[in-house]
Amino acid sequence: EKLTIGLIPADGIGKEVIPPAAEVMDAVLPGKFEFITLPAGFELFQQTGVALPEETVETLRTKCQGALFGAVSSPSHKVAGYSSPIVALRKKLQTYANIRPVSSPSVRNAKNQDVPVDMLIIRENTECLYIKSERLETDENGAKVAYADRKITEFASKRIGRVAFEQAVARGKLREQQKQQGIKVGWTGKPKVTIVHKSNVLSVSDGLFRESVLAVKNEKPEYADVDVEEQLVDSMVYRMFREPEKFDVVVAPNMYGDIISDGAAALVGSLGLVPSTNFGDVVVIGEPVHGSAPDIAGKGIANPIASIRSAAMLLENLNFTAEAAKIYNSVDKLLSEGKILTPDLGGNATTKDVTAAIISNL
Amino acid sequence: EKLTIGLIPADGIGKEVIPPAAEVMDAVLPGKFEFITLPAGFELFQQTGVALPEETVETLRTKCQGALFGAVSSPSHKVAGYSSPIVALRKKLQTYANIRPVSSPSVRNAKNQDVPVDMLIIRENTECLYIKSERLETDENGAKVAYADRKITEFASKRIGRVAFEQAVARGKLREQQKQQGIKVGWTGKPKVTIVHKSNVLSVSDGLFRESVLAVKNEKPEYADVDVEEQLVDSMVYRMFREPEKFDVVVAPNMYGDIISDGAAALVGSLGLVPSTNFGDVVVIGEPVHGSAPDIAGKGIANPIASIRSAAMLLENLNFTAEAAKIYNSVDKLLSEGKILTPDLGGNATTKDVTAAIISNL
Ligand SMILES: CC(C)[C@H](C(=O)O)[C@@H](O)C(=O)O
Ligand SMILES: CC(C)[C@H](C(=O)O)[C@@H](O)C(=O)O
Repeated sequence: EKLTIGLIPADGIGKEVIPPAAEVMDAVLPGKFEFITLPAGFELFQQTGVALPEETVETLRTKCQGALFGAVSSPSHKVAGYSSPIVALRKKLQTYANIRPVSSPSVRNAKNQDVPVDMLIIRENTECLYIKSERLETDENGAKVAYADRKITEFASKRIGRVAFEQAVARGKLREQQKQQGIKVGWTGKPKVTIVHKSNVLSVSDGLFRESVLAVKNEKPEYADVDVEEQLVDSMVYRMFREPEKFDVVVAPNMYGDIISDGAAALVGSLGLVPSTNFGDVVVIGEPVHGSAPDIAGKGIANPIASIRSAAMLLENLNFTAEAAKIYNSVDKLLSEGKILTPDLGGNATTKDVTAAIISNL
Repeated sequence: EKLTIGLIPADGIGKEVIPPAAEVMDAVLPGKFEFITLPAGFELFQQTGVALPEETVETLRTKCQGALFGAVSSPSHKVAGYSSPIVALRKKLQTYANIRPVSSPSVRNAKNQDVPVDMLIIRENTECLYIKSERLETDENGAKVAYADRKITEFASKRIGRVAFEQAVARGKLREQQKQQGIKVGWTGKPKVTIVHKSNVLSVSDGLFRESVLAVKNEKPEYADVDVEEQLVDSMVYRMFREPEKFDVVVAPNMYGDIISDGAAALVGSLGLVPSTNFGDVVVIGEPVHGSAPDIAGKGIANPIASIRSAAMLLENLNFTAEAAKIYNSVDKLLSEGKILTPDLGGNATTKDVTAAIISNL
């Protein structure tokens, strides 16, 4: 029986990279998927006044086994009535974990060594400043004063902590298998979880995030073998660039996770390479980490790799592990050959060229 | 008549890098300064129960023409009654701008080009999540729920915006002079202010920061010539690493400023190189951007350059521009020779070696 996959290209290059991802899914499992395209985005809002139609959410919730989201445009001015559809979607479908693998066979560290990077960033996806509870007041001089609430719960912090420890253990097992098969692995140490916070300033809220994730370590015997370390968010950004080889699984509250995953993308060469899934109990939504890139939208030169890798992550979630591996390998081959690359990677290939090459390498 | 400079070494390597900075000030203007050492820090808290004695604050407020702060240790556990003394000091003395110049004659960008970096990060220093207004509640299941308030005011945002535009104009003028003297300058374009925010999610609070800084541009005719651009904070971290040559003055709310300045330090090679001043109307406090570095504290190998450059920034604020320039030049000479370097820069010199070399080059 067919699986239904919702495609929400949304804005800008989202519309150019989601169809290639669907094409690759279809190439690796012909006829297995029925794709339905669902509307959302800032452009939709400009036309209809609605950024995320209720029907899109309901279709994802009731009909889809998985989804792929493109990217949304960010109006720089505050637009009355507009609110980011991806933030709303994550909340409505309770995709509580944003999972962002960042890897590269070789990156230059601060000691001028070529090191492998093999990080998995686990971003909490439902709270922190993203609850968007803000208010505007006026001070005694009539000047504006704004407040935003940052919410951190023990519940969501433990939930994301569990994702981090589970992933650390699973990655550890996979690496053992790979080592036995003689496959070179990126991260070679014991499984490790790095907790990112700023509890030296936010002792209550980040203190709660920290202690909740730490507490997860004692929940299962198999977590005992996972090393745990902490990094203040400022220091994390610094160290990630100085010694990127030292990170395995990294877990962070929503906003810090947003920032460090873009930083990590710079490390491995391009935002156009970094995939993610919005993971939860209802439906998994693959999503490239990059934005809608208005500067290159419509030119046919957007890098489809982040989306294609997001499709592979989605396949893993649907238990098509072997098919996902085929996609990863095909992408890795393309990158290591370094011939057919979009401009963000210094090449002059088009979105279509890259997609065709990945499909033919499968 | 002598000027009184408060020295607050605080914790860890703070105690090793502040004396060298005072030594260099004394070498460049012999006998001009009276230095008084003032207590603060986590170590002090452990001994006395007080992290920032009221007398330290009062001495700075009433007796000092300037100050240098070292670094504070961050207990990873929440310690009852302890609160970061540097955050408290910034607030009590209303040093509303944290000014962090990040520069290097040559850094590798994403296109593999060697480019100069010449950024001035202006971090708002009194509000945002740093107001430390947090509370802990319990949900219906007895689990903990924490809230932190993020406060952004029109007043403080305009105030920091003015610092950014003033600095952009002043740097522009200085560069014109330097060009005429045949001195190679880092930033070669028109003066530019980059506003960092995340108004696509925080439309009210970051929206207020954004609109307040933008409004400053119209306050003085000379600001008309300053280019203004905006970067979402995640994108800012990405771009800073991809094309660091494209930034002149960067202005950000407190927390984003904290994060991007550590990131920028990774870009130019070491946190041990990046100075700052906490700037306000009462007193200016120079402060290296690095932390207390417990891993190397007590070994005599901490890089004193960030502190020494912070001392030079303090001298500029006290209108000893020529003497400040001597210090900058001496540090630049040491770095370009690349012989006497502390371990963070790949060398094996000590704090004393580097300080002595900088003094002898003056
Ligand atoms: C578009 C924006 C709301 C979003 C976010 O901040 O989560 C994006 O930056 C991301 O990382 O997916
Ligand atoms: C020590 C800490 C409170 C401080 C901050 O976050 O401001 C530090 O990181 C800095 O940048 O000066």
